[in-house]
Amino acid sequence: MPTDPGFATTPEPPYWVVIFTSRRSGEDHEGYARMAEAMAALAPKQPGYLGIESTRDPEGLGITLSYWSSEQAIHDWKRVAAHAEAQRLGHSRWYTEFVTRVARVERAYTKATSEQAGL
Amino acid sequence: MPTDPGFATTPEPPYWVVIFTSRRSGEDHEGYARMAEAMAALAPKQPGYLGIESTRDPEGLGITLSYWSSEQAIHDWKRVAAHAEAQRLGHSRWYTEFVTRVARVERAYTKATSEQAGL
Repeated sequence: MPTDPGFATTPEPPYWVVIFTSRRSGEDHEGYARMAEAMAALAPKQPGYLGIESTRDPEGLGITLSYWSSEQAIHDWKRVAAHAEAQRLGHSRWYTEFVTRVARVERAYTKATSEQAGL
Repeated sequence: MPTDPGFATTPEPPYWVVIFTSRRSGEDHEGYARMAEAMAALAPKQPGYLGIESTRDPEGLGITLSYWSSEQAIHDWKRVAAHAEAQRLGHSRWYTEFVTRVARVERAYTKATSEQAGL
């Protein structure tokens, strides 16, 4: 796995990913930044957490990928009280639009492993 | 599904997603932009293409999600000649680091459907 801190260090598949695509409303920048930081600190304490990758462009379109060892781990994280509050505020205040997808990762390769495979 | 053009209009799961996390090298901005545009025009002509979502932050960390109806469709797109050339240049020139993950989407909900579900 890459050493670049923007990348998650995930194990061999299979594992699970929550894909969160969102458009920021532009409202409440401070509250949003504070919550994002709190969630980034809390998630790694959850059982089954594997890592996170997140990026947002200057037009406010963002994609966050959180990786989990099982569907149960995703289910449990969704119900953590502080996270439920973050979801509620995300819905009412921070995002004009979002889609959440839950998917099972079947295969993964890095720049280094695709070199080994001759790709 | 959202009408925001940054979001893909995907069908009911299950379907497949290629998750491409990458760090741009900063080299060859023009060549990269030209190829990205060409691939964005070519992919929708492939059988099984469902849509794309893509974002990159000012530090060059990007996530691109391409959605497909089947694993076979992903396999076929990977081998389209123009796309293989894009992958080769991505590897040698445009990205300092990347990870590609292939995953099966099992569940999805939008801002609107999560409202209906009382979430």
